[in-house]
Amino acid sequence: MDIFDRLKTAATDDWQAYVDHDFVRRLGGGTLPEAAFRTYLVQDYLFLIQFARAYALASYKSRRLEDIRSAQAGLASVLEETELHVRLCARWGLSRDDIETAPEHQATVAYTRFVLDCGAAGDLLELHVALAPCVIGYAEIGRALVAAHGPSLEGHPYGEWIGEYAGEGYQGVAAAARRRLDDLAQRSMTEGRFTELAAIFAKASRLEADFWQMGLDARGP
Amino acid sequence: MDIFDRLKTAATDDWQAYVDHDFVRRLGGGTLPEAAFRTYLVQDYLFLIQFARAYALASYKSRRLEDIRSAQAGLASVLEETELHVRLCARWGLSRDDIETAPEHQATVAYTRFVLDCGAAGDLLELHVALAPCVIGYAEIGRALVAAHGPSLEGHPYGEWIGEYAGEGYQGVAAAARRRLDDLAQRSMTEGRFTELAAIFAKASRLEADFWQMGLDARGP
Amino acid sequence: MDIFDRLKTAATDDWQAYVDHDFVRRLGGGTLPEAAFRTYLVQDYLFLIQFARAYALASYKSRRLEDIRSAQAGLASVLEETELHVRLCARWGLSRDDIETAPEHQATVAYTRFVLDCGAAGDLLELHVALAPCVIGYAEIGRALVAAHGPSLEGHPYGEWIGEYAGEGYQGVAAAARRRLDDLAQRSMTEGRFTELAAIFAKASRLEADFWQMGLDARGP
Amino acid sequence: MDIFDRLKTAATDDWQAYVDHDFVRRLGGGTLPEAAFRTYLVQDYLFLIQFARAYALASYKSRRLEDIRSAQAGLASVLEETELHVRLCARWGLSRDDIETAPEHQATVAYTRFVLDCGAAGDLLELHVALAPCVIGYAEIGRALVAAHGPSLEGHPYGEWIGEYAGEGYQGVAAAARRRLDDLAQRSMTEGRFTELAAIFAKASRLEADFWQMGLDARGP
Repeated sequence: MDIFDRLKTAATDDWQAYVDHDFVRRLGGGTLPEAAFRTYLVQDYLFLIQFARAYALASYKSRRLEDIRSAQAGLASVLEETELHVRLCARWGLSRDDIETAPEHQATVAYTRFVLDCGAAGDLLELHVALAPCVIGYAEIGRALVAAHGPSLEGHPYGEWIGEYAGEGYQGVAAAARRRLDDLAQRSMTEGRFTELAAIFAKASRLEADFWQMGLDARGP
Repeated sequence: MDIFDRLKTAATDDWQAYVDHDFVRRLGGGTLPEAAFRTYLVQDYLFLIQFARAYALASYKSRRLEDIRSAQAGLASVLEETELHVRLCARWGLSRDDIETAPEHQATVAYTRFVLDCGAAGDLLELHVALAPCVIGYAEIGRALVAAHGPSLEGHPYGEWIGEYAGEGYQGVAAAARRRLDDLAQRSMTEGRFTELAAIFAKASRLEADFWQMGLDARGP
Repeated sequence: MDIFDRLKTAATDDWQAYVDHDFVRRLGGGTLPEAAFRTYLVQDYLFLIQFARAYALASYKSRRLEDIRSAQAGLASVLEETELHVRLCARWGLSRDDIETAPEHQATVAYTRFVLDCGAAGDLLELHVALAPCVIGYAEIGRALVAAHGPSLEGHPYGEWIGEYAGEGYQGVAAAARRRLDDLAQRSMTEGRFTELAAIFAKASRLEADFWQMGLDARGP
Repeated sequence: MDIFDRLKTAATDDWQAYVDHDFVRRLGGGTLPEAAFRTYLVQDYLFLIQFARAYALASYKSRRLEDIRSAQAGLASVLEETELHVRLCARWGLSRDDIETAPEHQATVAYTRFVLDCGAAGDLLELHVALAPCVIGYAEIGRALVAAHGPSLEGHPYGEWIGEYAGEGYQGVAAAARRRLDDLAQRSMTEGRFTELAAIFAKASRLEADFWQMGLDARGP
């Protein structure tokens, strides 16, 4: 059992409420209202900007050149992801201007700033634990949706999204994130500290579930 | 017109939606459901803990001894306020344990971490602009409620709360906060930067309105 | 063996070079040139300003109210110490203006900013390990000087300084700092991490020794 | 007059003591002892690691995607520079291990942590003002040495170093850094604040001069 599995087990209810949220189910089943998905897409773009900052923070907080470099690679790839996101938005009829000028929703502020504050006030382990529901969770969600609905995403309205996170590339990103959690935990996680980390993980999972809910509640841009 | 008035004017709609929120009106009129007030009280305690951290951040970011000292005084008084809060909660039947173990609501996370991130990523001016809707806004709300409902708060279910913020002590705190904004703006606010600061102020006001809404929506502890 | 003793043992040479520095010996023996002491006093005042910021940083980085409060108490007492320092300087003919306008020496910048960066980039444990040579070291130095030169400091040119750090008050501060290190280590120090912490401790000790050397090298204000 | 020129003018003495330091003169004249240069090279490598962190900090503190991206590009290029540095060191007989395990000198700690603290406690303008003596100063030094000693660096013992900083590539980096200072100043520099910024610039210049001095004083690895 790696640290990520231990965190999931310790936060089972919050984790399930997140990865099995109605938004996710309906996205998988293709019945998610388009307005919900569009709202999600726009907020997810704003989310990525803050995530880029979280990787920059990880780079700043690193001491060894290889850690600075590895966080910089993470930052570069989030920045690249924002460009992919702009293209995905375009296919849903959302212009760059639509997404850049949209106000951040409370749910977006809550999760992103929570992560950044975990990183600013805590150490790299806390930062990465707070990021894990997003970074590793999306890979689990993508894989689970493919398992439930079959590998053929042709004609699926949200097939591109599912394919992205179920794909080999993103699965590799998530696997690397799991290994990093283990490395960081080996360095500075005593058993006594696990409870605190599990509380951060549970809270981040709840804030992620709230993020899905924001999509469902919205009528979309 | 001091900076605070300029910020309010620039963010009129968001500001009005906050200070004239239904939660505030019903609190003033004495018709706010007790459950809403109790939920608010508990979250406000969790809010204060993060506010203490915001003043500690201001102290850390100061360069001159007098600024370190002044932020330290702010920190000390927020810490004192948390104790008053515990006593106020007790009068509403909420034990210290009830309030310390309550999970932070999304609205609490969103506003507090937004403020902390403004302070961590920006300068002292941004930190204090993000704090202003709370620190100065509560004084305006307290005074407005007394103006609307008369100075006698006897028998008013929320009279203690109103009296606290309408009182001379808190009005002085808010007046000092306004002067500090002016001092900080004189140092590092160009006219071009005002637009950015007004956007921070507007966003903080919206997050404060969401905080009231969280109280209204809740069934209370 | 508490963590502090383990750190000292792991960094024996750097520790000895610091606590047994020629500046310390001559201060104890009363033969330290007045100019060296005066230079030290002025820089130590500038040092305390940054130390106040380090405690403010500890307060900001704390999560639990009791930790925020405890760091705030540390901050308040450093701020008080700066006032004592102004009075001590006055007795050596140094006005408040002399000490406030003095440029920070390289040695002062190096140690203080190193500590602040340990705290900004690391966790509370790293911050307190970097502070330890100063906070706990001064208590050891004070006690050792009294042991070597006898308890009567009457007529000793630096008796007030020695008495301050050898005294019960400061010894209690240092004992509390040792306990805090143990608490923090119990939370987030794995054995693997000890090596890193010992390197921080050794470096901080070297920077403290450089601080004494700066005093010796100077001709004084 | 751009901001950089104003800063230089305000800090003329400290600036001259830095760019016209004996280390620089002797490097230009080819009479710098090899040991001094080797010591400098090793410490400059350790310096670059902290500079990478400073750019990561700038990226974290940015709000707009384009600013995050631009700081990320700066970070990437500092990381690349460290590799060039390893190769340069190799030509002077210094292995990667020699440079990675060398202890940081007080002068290295002082300047790098001062810059990082300016960035952590202040805003992006302060961070870039603190970086300017290094980033822009090296371009001025490189150009001045070529102007003094002629463009042919063939056979010059330190020709590679001079050519690097006098070259078009680095001159472009410095020109961009000057423009960024102007942009940041336009946003948040009032005239009243200029004095504070000039003090930061002067201090950073003194710490850079101390860094040269450290090279001269050393007997080299």
